[in-house]
Amino acid sequence: MRYETVALDDEKSALVILDQTKLPNEVEVLSLTGRQEIWQAIYLLKVRGAPAIGVAAAIALYLAAKGIDTDAFESFYRQLREAKDYYASARPTAVNLFWALDRMERVALAHREEPVAAIKEHLRREAVRVKEEDIEVCRAIGEHGLRLIKDGDGILTHCNAGQLATARYGTALAPIHLGRERGYHFKVFTDETRPLLQGARLSAFELAADGVDTTLICDNMASQVMKNGWVQAVFVGCDRLAANGDACNKIGTSGVAILAKYYDIPFYVCAPTSTIDLHTARGEDIPIEERPAHEVTEMWYQKRMAPEGVNVYNPAFDFADHELITGIVTEFGVVYPPYDQSLRAIFAKKAGKTADVAKA
Amino acid sequence: MRYETVALDDEKSALVILDQTKLPNEVEVLSLTGRQEIWQAIYLLKVRGAPAIGVAAAIALYLAAKGIDTDAFESFYRQLREAKDYYASARPTAVNLFWALDRMERVALAHREEPVAAIKEHLRREAVRVKEEDIEVCRAIGEHGLRLIKDGDGILTHCNAGQLATARYGTALAPIHLGRERGYHFKVFTDETRPLLQGARLSAFELAADGVDTTLICDNMASQVMKNGWVQAVFVGCDRLAANGDACNKIGTSGVAILAKYYDIPFYVCAPTSTIDLHTARGEDIPIEERPAHEVTEMWYQKRMAPEGVNVYNPAFDFADHELITGIVTEFGVVYPPYDQSLRAIFAKKAGKTADVAKA
Repeated sequence: MRYETVALDDEKSALVILDQTKLPNEVEVLSLTGRQEIWQAIYLLKVRGAPAIGVAAAIALYLAAKGIDTDAFESFYRQLREAKDYYASARPTAVNLFWALDRMERVALAHREEPVAAIKEHLRREAVRVKEEDIEVCRAIGEHGLRLIKDGDGILTHCNAGQLATARYGTALAPIHLGRERGYHFKVFTDETRPLLQGARLSAFELAADGVDTTLICDNMASQVMKNGWVQAVFVGCDRLAANGDACNKIGTSGVAILAKYYDIPFYVCAPTSTIDLHTARGEDIPIEERPAHEVTEMWYQKRMAPEGVNVYNPAFDFADHELITGIVTEFGVVYPPYDQSLRAIFAKKAGKTADVAKA
Repeated sequence: MRYETVALDDEKSALVILDQTKLPNEVEVLSLTGRQEIWQAIYLLKVRGAPAIGVAAAIALYLAAKGIDTDAFESFYRQLREAKDYYASARPTAVNLFWALDRMERVALAHREEPVAAIKEHLRREAVRVKEEDIEVCRAIGEHGLRLIKDGDGILTHCNAGQLATARYGTALAPIHLGRERGYHFKVFTDETRPLLQGARLSAFELAADGVDTTLICDNMASQVMKNGWVQAVFVGCDRLAANGDACNKIGTSGVAILAKYYDIPFYVCAPTSTIDLHTARGEDIPIEERPAHEVTEMWYQKRMAPEGVNVYNPAFDFADHELITGIVTEFGVVYPPYDQSLRAIFAKKAGKTADVAKA
């Protein structure tokens, strides 16, 4: 895709994002310099997806630091903390937002003995690193995922776990984007993903923009597409993965997993290790957020499509039972059942790599 | 429901219908007298659903006959044929339309020796009979279906196989409407049924209008609702049932059937014997109509919700494999596997009843 989800324009001291609320009808790249407009962009979901929000927050805090006009660390740090608290209030439930802001603050504190100008440079590098690490994780997921499929395969996906949710490649869509770079031709079916249509608006957009053969279907057509023999693998993203392998993701994911099992199609969950939560035993322990009825009854808030007063159940997520998951694709490789053992092993591998980096 | 889907107002020489294209936002009862406005109402789906179309056509042809100003049979019959051909052109693929019009024509021919005024009265009675027979078939399906569930049960349905598709009760919704008459309290979950939202617009409307506890969900939420333990039975309608029991119905039906099997929930297909086609061996032999992409990409034709140029696959139907169907509810009773035998037995029963009626 020729658009970047989120980028730093250091010359203009700007956070550059693709406005996702305008997609797919308008492609508008925003160059944001004011603190309030950056806060609004995060709050209004102009930039969305946990990894992309983390990168945006890191860049935003660097830009705030850059604009602080003082040589005294105490004054600099006080103003940095103000900016940090301000940005943290934009999406109070977005874990990656806090994670990125905390990481930036730690860098400032670690270099507190250096001149403020040097600290600003450390913060710039850290913001760039947050983005590069995200790209590396997604690229690694893409590499591992790509080995599970072959050129020409039909792939079905649900929601948008793509480049638009990350700095590049995405998670579930990483094998497809990476394959595209290498000349593979996949045929991708994207569920529209009611009620908010992330599949129709975002996945269809980014895949088509990348030149991928993309077919949009309504969620209830996945069974027929599978029955037709058009799907060789399903790839979905993951909001939170429990220790037993249960994968919490956008509503509808469990249904797709059950259909894939029925039609004997491999079902893969793409999950950076940052989304794996070994402290959560199983999917049932993850609370399911319920969202407002109007998302279901008023498409695009223009015209009601259901009678007034009807009850609506609108859960935002469900989870695919670990028994339905063929493999979990992480940045450290593909993990297979039994997940309670293999997920712990991947964390040991991760700890080993981190230790290697620390030693180096 | 206090509204009739389709009715004869003989005093005003009018076909009275509830305009289904305005639902759920406006409840408009139309009293149609002109041939052209009746033709338009059928063509524009203001009245829809195979049985309801049949009833509307019978009433329309009676009204046309009533308006023919001649005492000579030949002239009367020529004008009746003109009206018949005109109405038949409104929905060229609607089998029930031709069936009802042919039935009316046969009545006129059978009484050709009688005065034209008497023939008109025979046609009036026949139109009323077409409607009453439809109500009887639906009521019988409701009776048999009601025995499969108990008061307080949660029922999931897909699309609209309800009163709005028939003269009264519907097929899949007949057990619910009939149960409601008898004081049962079911909790009904209705899939919105993308792309055309018959579940959100029509089933939710008619169930709520009947005072039934109704909850609207997006199609991709059915799995979560079942997982929650809220569904004790699934009832769906049927467009065409093959000899082996494969049930062709609105797109998404096969997915719901697979989910029901996975969660061990009984899945019932409500099918009047008129929809059972013993000459079609299996579901694969039924051609799947594909409909235009804009139904998927432009909700309510107001605003695009998918990128320009994206491929769309939009099959209008799929079928539930007979192995997924717990029972088929007909007006002659509930049929169980093996369907290749039990469906033939129900036709023998039907033939017996028809013979009894002929003898009487």
